Amino acid sequence: MIYNAPIKDMLFLLKECFGLDTLRALPGNEELDADLLEAVLEEAGKFCSTELLAINQGGDQHGAVHADGKVTTPPGFKEAYAKFIGNGWTGIDANPEHGGQGLPKMLHVLIDEMLGATNLAFKLYAELSRGAYHLLENTACAEIRARYLPNMVAGTWSGTMCLTEPHCGTDLGLLTTKAVPAGDGSYKISGSKIFITSGDHDLTENILHLVIARIAGAPPGTRGISLFLVPKILVNDDGSLGERNAVVTASIEHKMGIRGSATCALNFEDATGYLIGEENRGMAAMFRMMNIERLTVGMQGLGFAEIAYQNALAYALDRQQSKAPAPRPDAGKAADPIIYQPEVKRQLLTMRAQIEGARALAVYTAMHADIMEKSADPEAAADAKNTVALLTPVIKSFFTDLGMSSTLSAQQIYGGHGYIREHGMEQLVRDCRITPIYEGTNEVQALDLVSRKLTGDTGELADRFFAECLAFAKQNADAATATAMQHLIEATAWLRERHEADDAAVRGAAVQYLRLFALAIIGCMWTRTVAAANGKQGAFYTTKRKLARFYRDRILPETASLLATITGGGAAVADFAVADFSN
Amino acid sequence: MIYNAPIKDMLFLLKECFGLDTLRALPGNEELDADLLEAVLEEAGKFCSTELLAINQGGDQHGAVHADGKVTTPPGFKEAYAKFIGNGWTGIDANPEHGGQGLPKMLHVLIDEMLGATNLAFKLYAELSRGAYHLLENTACAEIRARYLPNMVAGTWSGTMCLTEPHCGTDLGLLTTKAVPAGDGSYKISGSKIFITSGDHDLTENILHLVIARIAGAPPGTRGISLFLVPKILVNDDGSLGERNAVVTASIEHKMGIRGSATCALNFEDATGYLIGEENRGMAAMFRMMNIERLTVGMQGLGFAEIAYQNALAYALDRQQSKAPAPRPDAGKAADPIIYQPEVKRQLLTMRAQIEGARALAVYTAMHADIMEKSADPEAAADAKNTVALLTPVIKSFFTDLGMSSTLSAQQIYGGHGYIREHGMEQLVRDCRITPIYEGTNEVQALDLVSRKLTGDTGELADRFFAECLAFAKQNADAATATAMQHLIEATAWLRERHEADDAAVRGAAVQYLRLFALAIIGCMWTRTVAAANGKQGAFYTTKRKLARFYRDRILPETASLLATITGGGAAVADFAVADFSN
Repeated sequence: MIYNAPIKDMLFLLKECFGLDTLRALPGNEELDADLLEAVLEEAGKFCSTELLAINQGGDQHGAVHADGKVTTPPGFKEAYAKFIGNGWTGIDANPEHGGQGLPKMLHVLIDEMLGATNLAFKLYAELSRGAYHLLENTACAEIRARYLPNMVAGTWSGTMCLTEPHCGTDLGLLTTKAVPAGDGSYKISGSKIFITSGDHDLTENILHLVIARIAGAPPGTRGISLFLVPKILVNDDGSLGERNAVVTASIEHKMGIRGSATCALNFEDATGYLIGEENRGMAAMFRMMNIERLTVGMQGLGFAEIAYQNALAYALDRQQSKAPAPRPDAGKAADPIIYQPEVKRQLLTMRAQIEGARALAVYTAMHADIMEKSADPEAAADAKNTVALLTPVIKSFFTDLGMSSTLSAQQIYGGHGYIREHGMEQLVRDCRITPIYEGTNEVQALDLVSRKLTGDTGELADRFFAECLAFAKQNADAATATAMQHLIEATAWLRERHEADDAAVRGAAVQYLRLFALAIIGCMWTRTVAAANGKQGAFYTTKRKLARFYRDRILPETASLLATITGGGAAVADFAVADFSN
Repeated sequence: MIYNAPIKDMLFLLKECFGLDTLRALPGNEELDADLLEAVLEEAGKFCSTELLAINQGGDQHGAVHADGKVTTPPGFKEAYAKFIGNGWTGIDANPEHGGQGLPKMLHVLIDEMLGATNLAFKLYAELSRGAYHLLENTACAEIRARYLPNMVAGTWSGTMCLTEPHCGTDLGLLTTKAVPAGDGSYKISGSKIFITSGDHDLTENILHLVIARIAGAPPGTRGISLFLVPKILVNDDGSLGERNAVVTASIEHKMGIRGSATCALNFEDATGYLIGEENRGMAAMFRMMNIERLTVGMQGLGFAEIAYQNALAYALDRQQSKAPAPRPDAGKAADPIIYQPEVKRQLLTMRAQIEGARALAVYTAMHADIMEKSADPEAAADAKNTVALLTPVIKSFFTDLGMSSTLSAQQIYGGHGYIREHGMEQLVRDCRITPIYEGTNEVQALDLVSRKLTGDTGELADRFFAECLAFAKQNADAATATAMQHLIEATAWLRERHEADDAAVRGAAVQYLRLFALAIIGCMWTRTVAAANGKQGAFYTTKRKLARFYRDRILPETASLLATITGGGAAVADFAVADFSN
């Protein structure tokens, strides 16, 4: 397996496509310059393509192990983690007040892509911890922040998100984990949580579980859920580690992939927990964190697509099989490299044109996440917040779907060699497969988009965004993207008309609408890319223009069919009753 | 995991949709009746859903093992195989002369579907053997047929296909395995073969390898390839087992799935082999076998889709999560079964509408395979042969793609529970993943379709077939299918115009053309289905009509985009040079 961080493309997006000026205009970012960003990306790329890639296959084969009440990470994970925190990677976008480096999200998403590409199982030990850090930073009181956050930023303590229970995943309103006031300001937490990523492991001295539970007497559903901090090891007033808390690792899951990541079933047996934020307001705090996490999961999908593409390209250049169509590269040979087969080229271009367009969308969205957090202009911050809210479900779903289609396509290019362990391609498929499932399935993302994001403030923002994209496409003579945007606008109107009266039709169209949305908007990112490359000479820019053309000619036409399916297909689902399935 | 063989639908296709009369009109089939076919299907279904399904998960976890020079199948495989051959399943469509039952392909494809659904790893031990049997039956001399075939039909001996070498898979013209005349009429075979399914195992007393190799002095490429029978254990003149032949199992592969199937690397070290058919005509004989095998692989894909659908349906009926859109099935509950979510219903219907349409296409094609083999009318036999040749790559590709999309969709419906081993859904994805790869990748199938099947006799047949389908759709007021057929006809004309002058454009459009072909033709199968259900009362027929509508409204619209992509997208691939990939 090879991996070369696509830094040239990343810098093009940061410097030429979206402009560093926007970032630098934000309070606290005055010192950011291109050299710093480049240096950080280079370092991240080096760490990922050497340290993390090297232990990725072994991590899969060995897996995390649960024995004698302890969870052990695969060989090499401890050493790599020590270097990882030693280099400060756990604090990249954390608050300098807690030892973080306060670097922008616009940079962090690109590091997320690299980590996801080279070793997702490893990344997850730090990733959920980062989510827990941001949640505590936003929600916890000053005392808890001071006691817990510096060690999280340093990476010597890690965090988890304990949401799912055996009978509830998507619908957390059903949860039954209980919290009872202990009388000293703390609570006793009891219940079983499953699918807890990094729920137990040997990489950090302590693990801080963020647990949602219901305080006795709280309302049913999501309005009665509170959030608690439940450390694996209790922390004394002086910050030192105290007694073991009553959190028991029942088992770890045997999974299709990310086998180096310990996915735990945890039992809380009157464990000591501290309320974070207000009673019964746990879901709101958790959702804030989940939204950041959803962007991150999208970047995992993009990372998988990128590493799949790179390896498939290398294989296609090397593997000689059958003759290419005329003119052959070397007519004297018995066979040509398979990259000369137009179908192989088409598959590689399908990956790459989507990957680069998606990466542009990621940087665009992360730029708005930075504006949302730091802008002194309340209107700009509000618009940015709505932009992030609108695009987050699209990125989570479309990018992870792209991860799947790309890893499957790369495996296909390897032929039989892609099906055996040796080349690592089948592991990419297995590891990537979790990304459309966790952090809210892609279907849940699509429902979020159609049910919550097309009305109110985000809906108003969407209309402006669509209109700007359409105008920009027309202005740049990008007819294919303009057509796709018109399809998106038409589909949006169709959904809105049914929003109140025919909720079932809206929900039944959600997944195909999200796909139409993503294809059209990524078309707009290609319009921007071509505009940024306009008038510039050199192979890099010429190739960008060719990729844009491929995207328009071979990928965008799908929006027409999606529109027809959405607007013509509601009744076919509605008229099929659940009882009909038994016929 | 559950599995109920879809016998009702199978019988509908055999009895009501395509008519048993066609079968019974063929010489040797006079005795066939619906009761016999039903009884065989019932027995097969029972065997698959009990014996084979029971050992499928264990087979995956244990895997085939290579140790001390021996290959051992997973626990339970030996016992199941003994019952399997005891019941005569290895001889279903074999010649009665060798102990077979001579039943039609139209029945056999449906049994293939059931076996593929419930335990592909197990099925493969018998499947390649069946291919080898048919190859020998068609190509070998009377002496070899008499000596080897009865034991193959009885299942006490099995067969393999030894084609692939480390440096050649798709392009077998590159093979280097050598054959040298031994002077006694036999040959000495030397070389290394990889990816040999059932290349070694403990289920049968002997294994008959069909090996392609080059006789010293033969022309290069595929015109210099000969076919040899190389038994693992040499067979004496009296038919008893003699000495061990010089065939060595070097290793077995560690694969993504079908782990219970032993995929071997075999070394032939001056092994004794017997020429089958004429010198240098090995590829023609092998291709005949491969075409049958490609239909069979298509049925594996369909089997995966069916079992994935059945389990996802059961889970969706059982799992309660979130509230359904109004009117809710039980407003008093905190959550409804997820099948009431329109998106879940849409995914289930997407599987089922394609599965039932595909099954109709399979039965239609198998009917032509029976006509091709048995018809006394040479014109009908020739037409049938061309029909099978035309549809075989479509079935192999589209059905295995359907297997993948359906197993992935089913896994998605299970959410996080689909990603862990326990429920078996992730195994379905891993096992199914080989089907778009082996027996000629789906891309190779698409090239076969566009490069060889649209001209000459099959091309002429295709035109008639398309015209009939279009007329039938119009006659039945099936506008959606008529439109899809027009897209297919237009895309076909576009390809033919470029067949000579722009081979690269044709090859680059191959995969999307095959998909357009399959979607349109399966639309025609739905026209036929609805016509067969016409005027009939009852839930079964009403449901068929609803599924047809779903297929037309929600699946067929894709053909418009495929047509646009094919006809508008040639230059985007051609203009992207291989060198551009390094930019």
